[in-house]
Amino acid sequence: MVGSPLLGKVHRGAAVVLTTQPHRPQIPRLTMEKTKVAIIGLGTVGSGVARLLLDHGDRTARHAGRILWLEKAVVRDLAKPRDCELPESVTLTDDIEAVIADPEIKVVAQLIGGLEPARTIMLKLLESGKDIVTANKALLAEHGAELFDRARELGRSIAFEASVAGGIPIIANVSQCLSANQITSLHGILNGTSNFILSKMHEDGASYEEVLPEAQRLGYAEADPAMDVDGSDAAQKLAILAHLAFGARVHWKDIPRTGIDTLDLADVRYAEEMGYKIKLLAVADLVDAGLELHVSPTLVRAGSPLAEVGGPMNAVRVDGDAVGRVMFYGPGAGQMPTASAVVADLIDTAVGRTELTFKTLELWSDRQARVASSDYANARGRFYLRATVEDHPGVLSQVTSALGAEDISIASVLQHEPLPGEDVIPLVIMTHETTEGAAAKACEEINKLKASQGPTVRMWVRD
Amino acid sequence: MVGSPLLGKVHRGAAVVLTTQPHRPQIPRLTMEKTKVAIIGLGTVGSGVARLLLDHGDRTARHAGRILWLEKAVVRDLAKPRDCELPESVTLTDDIEAVIADPEIKVVAQLIGGLEPARTIMLKLLESGKDIVTANKALLAEHGAELFDRARELGRSIAFEASVAGGIPIIANVSQCLSANQITSLHGILNGTSNFILSKMHEDGASYEEVLPEAQRLGYAEADPAMDVDGSDAAQKLAILAHLAFGARVHWKDIPRTGIDTLDLADVRYAEEMGYKIKLLAVADLVDAGLELHVSPTLVRAGSPLAEVGGPMNAVRVDGDAVGRVMFYGPGAGQMPTASAVVADLIDTAVGRTELTFKTLELWSDRQARVASSDYANARGRFYLRATVEDHPGVLSQVTSALGAEDISIASVLQHEPLPGEDVIPLVIMTHETTEGAAAKACEEINKLKASQGPTVRMWVRD
Repeated sequence: MVGSPLLGKVHRGAAVVLTTQPHRPQIPRLTMEKTKVAIIGLGTVGSGVARLLLDHGDRTARHAGRILWLEKAVVRDLAKPRDCELPESVTLTDDIEAVIADPEIKVVAQLIGGLEPARTIMLKLLESGKDIVTANKALLAEHGAELFDRARELGRSIAFEASVAGGIPIIANVSQCLSANQITSLHGILNGTSNFILSKMHEDGASYEEVLPEAQRLGYAEADPAMDVDGSDAAQKLAILAHLAFGARVHWKDIPRTGIDTLDLADVRYAEEMGYKIKLLAVADLVDAGLELHVSPTLVRAGSPLAEVGGPMNAVRVDGDAVGRVMFYGPGAGQMPTASAVVADLIDTAVGRTELTFKTLELWSDRQARVASSDYANARGRFYLRATVEDHPGVLSQVTSALGAEDISIASVLQHEPLPGEDVIPLVIMTHETTEGAAAKACEEINKLKASQGPTVRMWVRD
Repeated sequence: MVGSPLLGKVHRGAAVVLTTQPHRPQIPRLTMEKTKVAIIGLGTVGSGVARLLLDHGDRTARHAGRILWLEKAVVRDLAKPRDCELPESVTLTDDIEAVIADPEIKVVAQLIGGLEPARTIMLKLLESGKDIVTANKALLAEHGAELFDRARELGRSIAFEASVAGGIPIIANVSQCLSANQITSLHGILNGTSNFILSKMHEDGASYEEVLPEAQRLGYAEADPAMDVDGSDAAQKLAILAHLAFGARVHWKDIPRTGIDTLDLADVRYAEEMGYKIKLLAVADLVDAGLELHVSPTLVRAGSPLAEVGGPMNAVRVDGDAVGRVMFYGPGAGQMPTASAVVADLIDTAVGRTELTFKTLELWSDRQARVASSDYANARGRFYLRATVEDHPGVLSQVTSALGAEDISIASVLQHEPLPGEDVIPLVIMTHETTEGAAAKACEEINKLKASQGPTVRMWVRD
């Protein structure tokens, strides 16, 4: 086999040759059908999408069989500097009406964050006949029902691959590729900020408070990281996935969630000592009683695929009754990974695939839910408990009695000597399978003990 | 949240209620549009597909927006017992003409293996206006060009998700979900038989000859496992993926390949000693000179995601220039995982998605290749070498001279004492980056040394 490089330019029969030089975009030498596209919002993701459309028109044309032509970009402030240079062929405007009133623009990448004016803009765009691609997970989690129903009424589509797990094509995989399955379980590491911080706590033995500023400096955490580290962001994504995978109708605020913002380094160390890593897991498990949904810091057995997902990466493990267990891994955020998902959606929409898929998605429709959430207190599993107690004779017996009263049996106990000069000790207990409710009640009882010197920590364990 | 289970029956508006009881299939209570389907071949996979269509009509209907109605099944021998009970609504026949002549059958799952009569049947089906879904990777690897071109001429489609990596939806992910990317690298564990045997060799310290019968007993290896263990099966799959991901036109027989059938347990032990696991990797790397393609037993750094893919599982790691690195993991074979992929394709075909995707796939068309294979001898990387040499003074120097003559520098050397009574020693060398050609030449030179007592083993190393 002799080498013969052939990159950079793409020959698509005699139909079109597009250059791939940066900033010399969109110059089809011969005719090919165009789909005119607009971008609303040229922030980080918007700029990335513009770059892919402008600099790599050849590959979008190859996959779409037509040119995705960036016609207009709408920004709030025309004066603001941005990291993406637009050629003269693109109209840059601060007037959304310029897109709404342009009947030639068929597909819009709606990339502004937050709830308003994003919601109103989405509705206006749908009403003016545009198909939408969006990365706005918060908007879908809050107003998904309204937006999807309106799109359906109008015969339009909304694509949202980028709204969950960034560059991992989890929406397409769950809603399309695994469609022969009843999905029975979905466990995800869906928040890159939390995973980065947890990985650093494990690797460097540093506390949450020490790692957070580093995560912010590296761009893995926002200035205000609250939604990322308190489990809300993961719950929003889990709500979207639970709709898709199980037909569940659940608002993300109704998903029980605990974040990593109160996680103590001591628990990271004990977890390691016992062969586990702590991950913020978003869990959806189909059980007889319905769908168990929660977001929780969880001890995951070291060496298992989810435990080894490090840094800001995301992963989703899906069990289907036909396929068995599959896992998807990749970058959960960032400019180009998210742009990759948005542009794949633009291609799917231009080609017509999104329209077909959207029709069969039951997302947020007013039809009856296929499955209801089960009572979190009845969710079964093993738990990690750390009680902080005085170092007196009889204390271990009082603690184990509190567990016994809830019918919780103990798998292992870890009790180190107290540090010199300290008179409280951590008592680390791994339980056998029990319910979330029983574990919570036992912890309350332990906290009431006279010997208790602080609230008992409780985390899920997944082997 | 109060529990309210709602599984088993599915309410799709007022349109249809399908039962999900085993063997009481296909009884739509109200009308819904039907797509009539036939299965050719009721072997392992065919029976799995029939089971999903018959027992789970509700979910296929939900995802397709129409009923996938199994109308006919064609088998070679009507008298042969099979593990799938067909209801009276399905016509079981040994006459392929019964499908070809039935204009109401629109989609056919063609699930017979081998090249002929599979090829002829595929062509006849296409010519009679059927869209095809197939799992026959060998057929596509051999006659893909002819079949795809014929389908294109006739305005028909061929879907083939099940042909590579079983239940992992790698075809859809590469050809559709990652379409905004130039894929730059694709490394896959694509043969479950080989991965099962390698995993066992690592776990149990057992030799290839010891593990093979167990793999056969457990159904992970065929009675004649040659194609699986000599790298041919992985090369066929790699050829399909390289077509999709890079537009490469390469016949699988032109892909350099080494299997695991000559792998020595000693090398498994040395790899472990140095922190690696041996995996049969199918590699496609885009480099300046073109596309590097090969299938080789490879030392993969323990703890890296590909190294931890155990048992009969498959995984594909894909690097894209926008998305970065993503990985897909799951069962690469087996009845229901493969059936899961076939039925997803049937749904995509019934819905119309396959038609749209197929039009834009350049697979095996006669258009010019986008990238040509590079010269394997120029492929760069690190290598593991094990020379078997006499235990004399000066031998190490002769071996290192042979490496030096090819400009190969040494990263580490592992030399144990000879076993009592033996006078040959294994000399294990990890090189720094060099080329495949140089490493091969150096091994030839080492083998010519007077002190050499057997051929030098050579494997790729991936950190």
